[in-house]
Amino acid sequence: MISENQIHEELTALFNHLEFTATPAGLYDPLRYMIALGGKRVRPMLCLTTYSLYKDRLGKEVLQPAAGLEVFHNFTLIHDDIMDASAMRRGQTTVWSKWGENTAILSGDVMCIDSFKRIAKAPAECLDEVLQLFNTTAAQVCEGQQLDMEYEELPEVPMSKYMAMIGLKTGVLIACAAKMGALIAGAPEDDCDNLYDYGYSLGLAFQVADDYLDAYGNEETFGKPIGGDIINNKKSWLTTRALEKADELLHEQIMAVSEMPVDIPSQQRDKVARMKELYEKLHIDEDAKYEIIRLTDEALEAAHRACTGLRYEVLKRFADKLVGRTR
Amino acid sequence: MISENQIHEELTALFNHLEFTATPAGLYDPLRYMIALGGKRVRPMLCLTTYSLYKDRLGKEVLQPAAGLEVFHNFTLIHDDIMDASAMRRGQTTVWSKWGENTAILSGDVMCIDSFKRIAKAPAECLDEVLQLFNTTAAQVCEGQQLDMEYEELPEVPMSKYMAMIGLKTGVLIACAAKMGALIAGAPEDDCDNLYDYGYSLGLAFQVADDYLDAYGNEETFGKPIGGDIINNKKSWLTTRALEKADELLHEQIMAVSEMPVDIPSQQRDKVARMKELYEKLHIDEDAKYEIIRLTDEALEAAHRACTGLRYEVLKRFADKLVGRTR
Repeated sequence: MISENQIHEELTALFNHLEFTATPAGLYDPLRYMIALGGKRVRPMLCLTTYSLYKDRLGKEVLQPAAGLEVFHNFTLIHDDIMDASAMRRGQTTVWSKWGENTAILSGDVMCIDSFKRIAKAPAECLDEVLQLFNTTAAQVCEGQQLDMEYEELPEVPMSKYMAMIGLKTGVLIACAAKMGALIAGAPEDDCDNLYDYGYSLGLAFQVADDYLDAYGNEETFGKPIGGDIINNKKSWLTTRALEKADELLHEQIMAVSEMPVDIPSQQRDKVARMKELYEKLHIDEDAKYEIIRLTDEALEAAHRACTGLRYEVLKRFADKLVGRTR
Repeated sequence: MISENQIHEELTALFNHLEFTATPAGLYDPLRYMIALGGKRVRPMLCLTTYSLYKDRLGKEVLQPAAGLEVFHNFTLIHDDIMDASAMRRGQTTVWSKWGENTAILSGDVMCIDSFKRIAKAPAECLDEVLQLFNTTAAQVCEGQQLDMEYEELPEVPMSKYMAMIGLKTGVLIACAAKMGALIAGAPEDDCDNLYDYGYSLGLAFQVADDYLDAYGNEETFGKPIGGDIINNKKSWLTTRALEKADELLHEQIMAVSEMPVDIPSQQRDKVARMKELYEKLHIDEDAKYEIIRLTDEALEAAHRACTGLRYEVLKRFADKLVGRTR
């Protein structure tokens, strides 16, 4: 088994030296910029972690596919930021607002292609399975983004649809990362499938935690202003659950809050405060915490079907680190 | 060897029954729309043609990768149309002007991913080579589009840079199609490389012919209004050659024409007529025809290094059909 420290070091080295073609600079500079912005590198980290359960040494055959997962994730962020008209990401200007929409479209495209290049470096003996997994996942992520945009147009979305949407948008890529590491390590098929389920539930927990932190997090550790989802009327687990749980009167009150003006900071603060009052009246904050624990437990059950002992502990620690912020 | 008629029939059947995932419809409808718009299917046709030189039966192992080339090409068209703000393509509304930019970005993305899915269906024994070829090519096509956009901002581009740009934007994908068919058929390495060169030169000839027809074609067979490049000051082989060949006085006159107003149809007609006068004074129309023949001959020399006799004739007929419109 490879130690968690070792994985950390390899991953840092990998992203410090990630190479992209040099020219034309106008096309590749945004890729370097985006990767340098950092982020938690959740997907490659998870891929290397599940690989480490079966192997004693990290080789190129897993490092490049792991990097491919992160490159793909960053490609989706570049295009999502155009579609959502988001000017800031991780405290920095987004690619489209720095270089314009056309460059952001094209640099995103070449980043998507670059991710396929890296995934294709998986070893020959599992290449077909790895590609099938990744190709299916990549399409699902786009389907999730499409549903997300469609749901933005609706006043209300049932919880089952919301969960299916975040499953596509966030769950499947984290699930794919968990399974891919195991596939490349040559793990038994059952393990691969159970690790997929572990990643999927963990991805859902991660997204619900992100929704929770958007309203209840600490601005400094969360990395963006608190209340953004409420201010922009974004569909989130909190608002979905609130609308599902509210009686007629509260339902009307939530809808009224969503129409409050947000032109100046004080109005934004009022809107966030008012919505959080309604959430708390309905105990949505507690429901969210409970849901994160439930989903994490679901993930750990799947992990336990794949492995026990020290190897299980590695997966448990990974889960705690990823969603532990809310506990 | 497989007959040209058979290839035609298989290709028609392939694109009549090309399947895309069904939901969400908002994501996949634009893909179906784009593929249904038709076009010449040059890339899959060429892939099946080089395959046919070595095999007696068309199987799934080549049909899906061939389709992948067309799907990829269509993905680039969807995104190019956004970047160029083109409202019409093949006489129909473009995807972004029909469904909006966000849908066009995302449907393009999923179309790109779909193309990788189909390319990955190449047989295991050549999968690695096919993927390497396609991945490299796909990135190059984006590089070509980036250079195209950068060159639009410059008053003048040297011919060598113009040719390198269309080589990336158009040449490499046609070259890739020619080589891929041979790779999947298990052709000798030298043949594969020579067929790549055949495709590359043919792709250049095709693009120069397209530039020529934009000014000198027949509106009905060309499929779009004549003079579009001149009206919009698009870089083309004609204008690049004209600026390279012109003395100081003619150079100034060309620049003056490029600044003529094009607000109403009669102004557009005047501008096109005036620019064509200058072209003819410099014999640019004859130069273009000569260049198309020179590039086609270059392609046929490469074809001849790969094969002789009946097989060579197939490649010669393909070239004639593709660029013969200008001869």
